[in-house]
Amino acid sequence: MDLASAYQRLLEILAEIEDLKMAAAVLYWDRQTEMPPGGSVARGEQLTTLRRLAHEKLVQPKVGELLADLVTEAATMPGDSDQASMIRVAKREYEMATRIPSRLVVAMSEASDLAYHKWLEARAANDFATFVPALERVVALSRETAAALGYEDHPLDALIDQVEPGLDASKVAALFAELREPLVGLTRRIVASDAGRRAGLLHQEYPAGKQLELGMAAVRAIGFDVDRRGRQALSVHPFSISFSPDDTRITTRINRDYLGTSFFALLHEAGHGTYMQGIPDRLRRSILHEGASAGLHESQSRLWENVVGRSRYFWQHFLPVARAVFPSQFGTATVEEAYAAANVVRPSLIRVEADEVTYNLHIMIRFELEKAVLDGTLDLADLPEAWNRKFAAYLGIIPPDDLTGVLQDIHWTMRFGGSFQSYTIGNVASIALYRQALSENPGMHLDWSEGRFDSLLRWMQDNVHTHGSKFFPEELLVRATGAGLTAGPYLEHITDKYTELYQL
Amino acid sequence: MDLASAYQRLLEILAEIEDLKMAAAVLYWDRQTEMPPGGSVARGEQLTTLRRLAHEKLVQPKVGELLADLVTEAATMPGDSDQASMIRVAKREYEMATRIPSRLVVAMSEASDLAYHKWLEARAANDFATFVPALERVVALSRETAAALGYEDHPLDALIDQVEPGLDASKVAALFAELREPLVGLTRRIVASDAGRRAGLLHQEYPAGKQLELGMAAVRAIGFDVDRRGRQALSVHPFSISFSPDDTRITTRINRDYLGTSFFALLHEAGHGTYMQGIPDRLRRSILHEGASAGLHESQSRLWENVVGRSRYFWQHFLPVARAVFPSQFGTATVEEAYAAANVVRPSLIRVEADEVTYNLHIMIRFELEKAVLDGTLDLADLPEAWNRKFAAYLGIIPPDDLTGVLQDIHWTMRFGGSFQSYTIGNVASIALYRQALSENPGMHLDWSEGRFDSLLRWMQDNVHTHGSKFFPEELLVRATGAGLTAGPYLEHITDKYTELYQL
Repeated sequence: MDLASAYQRLLEILAEIEDLKMAAAVLYWDRQTEMPPGGSVARGEQLTTLRRLAHEKLVQPKVGELLADLVTEAATMPGDSDQASMIRVAKREYEMATRIPSRLVVAMSEASDLAYHKWLEARAANDFATFVPALERVVALSRETAAALGYEDHPLDALIDQVEPGLDASKVAALFAELREPLVGLTRRIVASDAGRRAGLLHQEYPAGKQLELGMAAVRAIGFDVDRRGRQALSVHPFSISFSPDDTRITTRINRDYLGTSFFALLHEAGHGTYMQGIPDRLRRSILHEGASAGLHESQSRLWENVVGRSRYFWQHFLPVARAVFPSQFGTATVEEAYAAANVVRPSLIRVEADEVTYNLHIMIRFELEKAVLDGTLDLADLPEAWNRKFAAYLGIIPPDDLTGVLQDIHWTMRFGGSFQSYTIGNVASIALYRQALSENPGMHLDWSEGRFDSLLRWMQDNVHTHGSKFFPEELLVRATGAGLTAGPYLEHITDKYTELYQL
Repeated sequence: MDLASAYQRLLEILAEIEDLKMAAAVLYWDRQTEMPPGGSVARGEQLTTLRRLAHEKLVQPKVGELLADLVTEAATMPGDSDQASMIRVAKREYEMATRIPSRLVVAMSEASDLAYHKWLEARAANDFATFVPALERVVALSRETAAALGYEDHPLDALIDQVEPGLDASKVAALFAELREPLVGLTRRIVASDAGRRAGLLHQEYPAGKQLELGMAAVRAIGFDVDRRGRQALSVHPFSISFSPDDTRITTRINRDYLGTSFFALLHEAGHGTYMQGIPDRLRRSILHEGASAGLHESQSRLWENVVGRSRYFWQHFLPVARAVFPSQFGTATVEEAYAAANVVRPSLIRVEADEVTYNLHIMIRFELEKAVLDGTLDLADLPEAWNRKFAAYLGIIPPDDLTGVLQDIHWTMRFGGSFQSYTIGNVASIALYRQALSENPGMHLDWSEGRFDSLLRWMQDNVHTHGSKFFPEELLVRATGAGLTAGPYLEHITDKYTELYQL
């Protein structure tokens, strides 16, 4: 087989794997948005079969042979070319997959399915203990996965590398160490000032249908195509998912007494959505048709949720739109009031509803606890207590129960360790990318006050989306901004913003 | 490998195939109910991959080896036992599948996807010619499929046998020959009487939300579990689909000016749904977890739509329910008026909205045209003209355009030939089954006037649903009613009903 045919054959196999993964994604979407309770057992079986087949297709000996022929060829091409990148990323994925036995893929899928249902049960009973046996299994299989993948220092290294290629636990810990004290300090200073009294505007009764109308107006304004290339639905936990460049879905949930829940979740998920819609069509149905990492993906959601959606400029444009949909609720509110209401900082229990400043503290708590459990220095049975201690230390509050504490996240039903760091990486990266975009388009943010967001979206498309998953996140950031992941600009941005807002 | 292990291994492989088919079904459901237009290309690819993999898994040599070991064993078991049936049905499916090359499965899936989109395009343009090239391809591949499967007399024999095991074109033609004249005659007598003047009740403005409320009340009343084991959605063409015994979905469409569209479609699809919900749990995720045939499936939808939903007894119970939901529309309507309105007979253009009497004439027209095209005695280009001639002959009306004529059905996008006969088989079988149920539970229909439908549902569960796809339709009918498929009782029932209703 000549090299062109070998490459063609590789692409065909990768396309088939992509079809299986996308089919699994449709089944997941349906499970979260529409499936009746009775469907859960069969759905777990169907998802396990699709995941196992995708894994089997990737680790088939033919893929190894094709790659062996192709890597030498790829070394002679520009590293950022489609073909060299396709071969490089396929090789990485192939090598990781071959280390994980098919049996482990099935066991993890089954354990995850059981854990999901036990987690729902535990939440209904508000009792972490109900969740522990199923969670034990997920932890054991996560450890086993890490061991199979291989690591030098800590099981988390392997798990983090799966979703943040090139990153490990010590680098994450170093980033968090830079962030922790400044953010804890900033939070204390804000709490000591007047936080809380500005919250009223968004905390009123907002009918569900109108909330969606307003949120989707914002989603359309920032450039997410929800009509021809997307859809929106409701789910218990907001998420975004993509089945092809031209079929990207977002969900939100509605809190009738607080507009912020649905509104910022929609902007957040649509931000993820712009990433999927922005990856070039020529990479479709291939291994490069993904974000560079979970953290880079999060940088796009945070960008539109926080940098844009919680900016003064955005509300200069959007306040009249909001008032037209909610005349009585927005009444005579000023831009300053709307801006303040969108940026209330207050230590709180639920991560997904946390503000920009305290959010990262929620992440650090999870990261540290996961590390300790995987170390073997913390028993799962003691997790709720450890959770509450950390909350007291970092946020000054203690969850009254498991539901608002250790049982709040769905993530541990899928794997234990290696997921949460990406949220903070996304926060940090969103600012780095935004600053670079701004420096190349000075005054760009002024366009927002006129409802024009296309220059920012285009910059992200040209500097982030266009690469798909060609580069490791660090390399992508260096290419786009000239610097890798670093806490400085983020802390500066956050400190400046809230010092001005709260007149600290 | 001992026989118990061989059987176990066979079940595992069949379960994997079932997972792939059910995953494809979820993707189909999503395509019809929610997918944005942009998603269509990728969805076609995903469906093709799933169908190809399901086919490859079934024709793998291992299945042939296992079956070879197991068939001798099965011959010593009772033929209606789960194990003997599983082996027998698997062998039939395996042998049919091995005759169809994987290449043909892929070609058909791709042709079907293209035809679906060309059909939508042709409908938008109201121009059959736009559809012809894509349809040519489907016809050619349907012929090729028939040739691969093998047949004695006519390609339709092979295509019919796929969905109605044991049946062929001459048996269908004989059934239709018995039905044609009496139904054409009955239609003429009704038209010559007062048909039409009774239609007013259901032809008023009925708000969409309330239509669903009423329809779903009927669906719940007849025993379809839409809450824990089902779901309902909207789609352009009503359909039902099942992903497991405990996850069966139905759709409907809404016509604001005619309540009958949504109401009877919901009863119809829920009838299909009761079949899927009624197959025993021990057959789940196996090759027996299906209806006995497309026609037997249709017998259940027709039972609830027509035998029950268009009965006087049903309306004795349901009129007050309808009046509570639609006080002004139902006003002072009597049971007799509601019964008459539910049974207006009038030659019409659209099959899915045809009444009980004329419906089968729509089917015969399609069957005869498909036969002629597959014979090579009718060119696709001449199909619209031939269609219109048959409409004039059987129904006395001529479609004004392609949209209300030859372009109305989605079926030809999936395959050409072998599908439509099952609707009439369903009509005929529904009466045979109902009559038997009634003879075993005299006065059962009186329960309907009190809103109790459980004795009828239970009879169907015990005599039809419980067997899954163990038996050929003819055998199932003989077991359940003592007789095979025959036109007599059906013609008697229809003639009696409408002679009384229209005082002919």
